[in-house]
Amino acid sequence: MSELRWDPLKQHWVIIATERGRRPQDFHQETDSCTMTSCPFCYGNEDKTPHELFAIRPSGPPNGPNWKVRVIPNKYPVLRVEGELKSRAYGLYDVMEGIGAHEVIIETPDHHKGLADLSTAEIANVLQAYRARLLDLRQDFRFRYMVLFKNHGTRAGATLHHSHSQLIAVPLIPPVAATELKVCRDYFSSKERCIYCDLIRFELESGERVVKEFAKFVSLTPYASSSPFELRLYPKHHAHDFALSGDSDLAELAVALKDMLVRLKLVLKDPPFNFILHTAPPMHQRLGKPDYWSSLAYDYHWHIELVPRLTQVAGFEWGTGFYINPTAPEDAATFLRDANI
Amino acid sequence: MSELRWDPLKQHWVIIATERGRRPQDFHQETDSCTMTSCPFCYGNEDKTPHELFAIRPSGPPNGPNWKVRVIPNKYPVLRVEGELKSRAYGLYDVMEGIGAHEVIIETPDHHKGLADLSTAEIANVLQAYRARLLDLRQDFRFRYMVLFKNHGTRAGATLHHSHSQLIAVPLIPPVAATELKVCRDYFSSKERCIYCDLIRFELESGERVVKEFAKFVSLTPYASSSPFELRLYPKHHAHDFALSGDSDLAELAVALKDMLVRLKLVLKDPPFNFILHTAPPMHQRLGKPDYWSSLAYDYHWHIELVPRLTQVAGFEWGTGFYINPTAPEDAATFLRDANI
Repeated sequence: MSELRWDPLKQHWVIIATERGRRPQDFHQETDSCTMTSCPFCYGNEDKTPHELFAIRPSGPPNGPNWKVRVIPNKYPVLRVEGELKSRAYGLYDVMEGIGAHEVIIETPDHHKGLADLSTAEIANVLQAYRARLLDLRQDFRFRYMVLFKNHGTRAGATLHHSHSQLIAVPLIPPVAATELKVCRDYFSSKERCIYCDLIRFELESGERVVKEFAKFVSLTPYASSSPFELRLYPKHHAHDFALSGDSDLAELAVALKDMLVRLKLVLKDPPFNFILHTAPPMHQRLGKPDYWSSLAYDYHWHIELVPRLTQVAGFEWGTGFYINPTAPEDAATFLRDANI
Repeated sequence: MSELRWDPLKQHWVIIATERGRRPQDFHQETDSCTMTSCPFCYGNEDKTPHELFAIRPSGPPNGPNWKVRVIPNKYPVLRVEGELKSRAYGLYDVMEGIGAHEVIIETPDHHKGLADLSTAEIANVLQAYRARLLDLRQDFRFRYMVLFKNHGTRAGATLHHSHSQLIAVPLIPPVAATELKVCRDYFSSKERCIYCDLIRFELESGERVVKEFAKFVSLTPYASSSPFELRLYPKHHAHDFALSGDSDLAELAVALKDMLVRLKLVLKDPPFNFILHTAPPMHQRLGKPDYWSSLAYDYHWHIELVPRLTQVAGFEWGTGFYINPTAPEDAATFLRDANI
């Protein structure tokens, strides 16, 4: 019998259609192969990209080779840095100029390595680049939120094979973050506790959906996963802002993230996936006080959400906002825990 | 410069990324070809499907050939009719048994014809089947909403090539419908007018996004389209419930729907698409009075939403709830209006 499960964080129902129960081998995947002859993200091609915004490079001048991680503006940005935030009504609609920032984090000089293939030290460098760019962008008060995400594989929306993540600063709080922030505030107001902390404790006690526990982090498949093999990576202790993580936190996060990515790659044979960093909005002030969204920031619990792109979102999902998941999260956790890592 | 546009109906922002401006020929599509040797939806294979629930058949017994439209239960239902609606808490989560109905509307006996290829009389038959099943299912008070949708093409989630639509009765109001119903009620409460009626009048006066106007219906590309070549088909006069449409309404709707589908097929070379019927929830009572959602029904304005599957939803969209649309709706409307139909 199928089950409907309510996600109290996202405030939506998902349908766990167990009678369509699907195992890893049922998700046919074509492996992407790279057909590029020249890649702008490779060593020696630094002049084919806009000037870098940040790099981890032991020696040598900016925009030359010898870097480990490199951050550049996106050549085809969704939103532009230049301009003023203007907004107006248009009939019953509203329209706002597309101000923001769109950056690319090149995770490795090696064209053929995915994030899962990097060493934990190399992944820690990537995380440090994330942190550096988040801290820099929050100085621009036009940006209300920074969206840090990765598309891996063509079916997950990646247009370049060379491993990279993206960072988009947006002039509005995204709806998904808005819902989570409000949920955290409401829960905290009535209970003086964080809803994520409570859910993480519940999951650790049950163990059914835990993939791997570390000293500071835990990876798990959420009870109300909206798609198969969905994963979350949580700091076990309350922390609202990823960008305030220390170097030792990032070093352990790199271990936990690599573990999660390697398990996924083994069990589902390098599936396309997206991950996104969910973190608190930057602290902005209005008339000398934190503005509305900033005032909610401390109640938030940052984490990473990962979704492999294994099923097609069709008319039902798009038209209703309900999601159909053919693999029970408990089964997904078992497969991932048992991975021969 | 990109623009952010606010959709007052869906209560979300979309990013119209005009600098990525894409024209019809930029959307590469692989045409699906059918590789089936035997199709359960074809004439003569009626015994390969569950017993029919409804059919339009000029002569002959049920479950034989000679039908024009045939409705059957889905062999692999997402939700099941049998059982009781049981719901319970699980930690901070909730879980509900997967009760519902899942039906398939086979739109034509011809394996190789899409909905756009049918005559308007044949399309009117399909619409009559929709109406008949919606009216029948609302007699079951466990079902709070009926989701009627079509997946056309593999990339839009269709698993069988033979042209069909689906109907899923769900035990909860879907989030998308809930938002629209609340928006309509709020608007009506303050203005004594329907927000859809006002938006349709605005669009007809502007004309910029109108594709084709008929006596009773109009097709248009919404101002805040979340993806390229998105379309709406609206009744021009207020009507909350598709299932209360008369035969003459359905006859004209068939003309308008065919017009929209043929334009889409010509301009984008038979793209994969999803459409979904947005209509009011059935009128259910609780303690002798309409329940909450039923009480909102009259303020709603039914319509059809269609989205071609031309772009990949990636990390940014999934993680934020913002959508990036690389084709301005005004340009899409021009291409569709100019189709050589």
